[in-house]
Amino acid sequence: MDETDKTEHYQARIEAALDRWLPDLDTAPRRLHEAMRYSVLGGGKRIRPLLVYATGEALGTDPEMLDAPSVAIELMHAFSLVHDDLPAMDDDDLRRGRPTVHKAFDEATAILAADAMQPLAFHVLSSDPALTAHPGAQVTLVRLLADACGSEGMTGGQAIDLASEGTRLDAAELEHMYRLKTGRLIRVSILSAAACPPQPDIEREHALERFADALGLAFQIRDDILDVEGETDVIGKQQGADEARNKATYPALFGMEHARARVAELLETALAQLEPFGAGANYLAYLARVIAERDH
Amino acid sequence: MDETDKTEHYQARIEAALDRWLPDLDTAPRRLHEAMRYSVLGGGKRIRPLLVYATGEALGTDPEMLDAPSVAIELMHAFSLVHDDLPAMDDDDLRRGRPTVHKAFDEATAILAADAMQPLAFHVLSSDPALTAHPGAQVTLVRLLADACGSEGMTGGQAIDLASEGTRLDAAELEHMYRLKTGRLIRVSILSAAACPPQPDIEREHALERFADALGLAFQIRDDILDVEGETDVIGKQQGADEARNKATYPALFGMEHARARVAELLETALAQLEPFGAGANYLAYLARVIAERDH
Repeated sequence: MDETDKTEHYQARIEAALDRWLPDLDTAPRRLHEAMRYSVLGGGKRIRPLLVYATGEALGTDPEMLDAPSVAIELMHAFSLVHDDLPAMDDDDLRRGRPTVHKAFDEATAILAADAMQPLAFHVLSSDPALTAHPGAQVTLVRLLADACGSEGMTGGQAIDLASEGTRLDAAELEHMYRLKTGRLIRVSILSAAACPPQPDIEREHALERFADALGLAFQIRDDILDVEGETDVIGKQQGADEARNKATYPALFGMEHARARVAELLETALAQLEPFGAGANYLAYLARVIAERDH
Repeated sequence: MDETDKTEHYQARIEAALDRWLPDLDTAPRRLHEAMRYSVLGGGKRIRPLLVYATGEALGTDPEMLDAPSVAIELMHAFSLVHDDLPAMDDDDLRRGRPTVHKAFDEATAILAADAMQPLAFHVLSSDPALTAHPGAQVTLVRLLADACGSEGMTGGQAIDLASEGTRLDAAELEHMYRLKTGRLIRVSILSAAACPPQPDIEREHALERFADALGLAFQIRDDILDVEGETDVIGKQQGADEARNKATYPALFGMEHARARVAELLETALAQLEPFGAGANYLAYLARVIAERDH
């Protein structure tokens, strides 16, 4: 398989796994499950699950074990998008080219649908038959995901982001916010694969951590660049939305040229960490390049 | 210790454990952590943790192992209260006699503070040193809590409750909604203690399940009765709030006399299940009576 085929293969795999774990529409409460399915199955590039499977390739992990962390991480990502879009937060009408959940349904349903995705994520990690023989790995996966999403992770990053509107952050503060808001969930995608057997030795684990840290930050700065440069119909949300809200972003604070240079530097750092993994990490390296150079 | 002293002892124990696990105010983002501490440490009777410890007494469980499930369950309870109070949901200004979180802080902070309590709950279950020697129990605790709080548990119950405003439910529908919205978290308090070593045999586990099911339903019907009869300064929220919102409640649908009779019947069913546990379950039986007969 070439890399494009592989991406399609894994995207189909995660799509099927998400569909399998999400409650179907015959299960009550129907409207809540409809909203959950609408937000989770509404497209998306599935970058985090792709990173889980790609890291698993580099480590020789059975992909059967990687479905649960892939699903759990994507559910937590979907949860955060639904709440970030709420009127009290970023107040967005459009997501992935479709009405946001509170627009397509209503605000209470959007809050609750996302609220229910968190327990579903932990249900998947604690219930998938492919992992039950490895309770120690399950506990690690739960802890990694919980820590990535809490007040000192993704949710804390969103709180700092909201609080920073209209203020001027310095580079360290901005990068700290990015590491929490986006970086932690990118990071956990890579570390979750490493938490499944066969676990890598400590040196390879540290290399993967450095890879993940650099890639997570590159991802968010690239996102900022796209918000300035992209067109609404390509990026699927309102272009310039960050600027309109007077949000702290990398290009706004440091200029487009510096932002691009920082992404290139981070990509180089990330790729250097993959050397010890040899050809097994080719697809992971490919994904890193796609993430740092994507146009949507 | 008599039962009142025991209750105070366990309340002090859970308060200390919550305080220990919640991020302190020196940890960024400060305002988010302030809102989390405000909502979790703002009083409350700690009925669910009391049930965890009381069930542990009946089973001879080391209380050290019960701190983590007690904290995790109380965090999930606090999360649900903060979101239920939001303007898009029940729109309440008062909780436990104090301004609700979105009133004391702001709506975005309330949404995010509660969002961060869910991962914290799972962090506690997967990190408490008292449980690390028992990964199988940890996984069971995670699964029990996740299932109790998801779209087919507490969050689903809240969705059904909102959808039922202004409609007429029959007894079976109303009891189903109660079992999800309130019952599942009461139930998980009891089953979590039973998931820790030494686990009870299957017959005792089933007796505890029946106890928990009856008690959870009695709790919610008693809550309805209090909403009609209680005074605002005793129950700590606006009396008659359910009626004002045209909510389906047991007394509204079936009359106060029938509601009282149903609570008494459920209490009797619950207490009957505790017979095999002998005197070890005395405190658990005491709590069941308090829950079914409380006046706030």
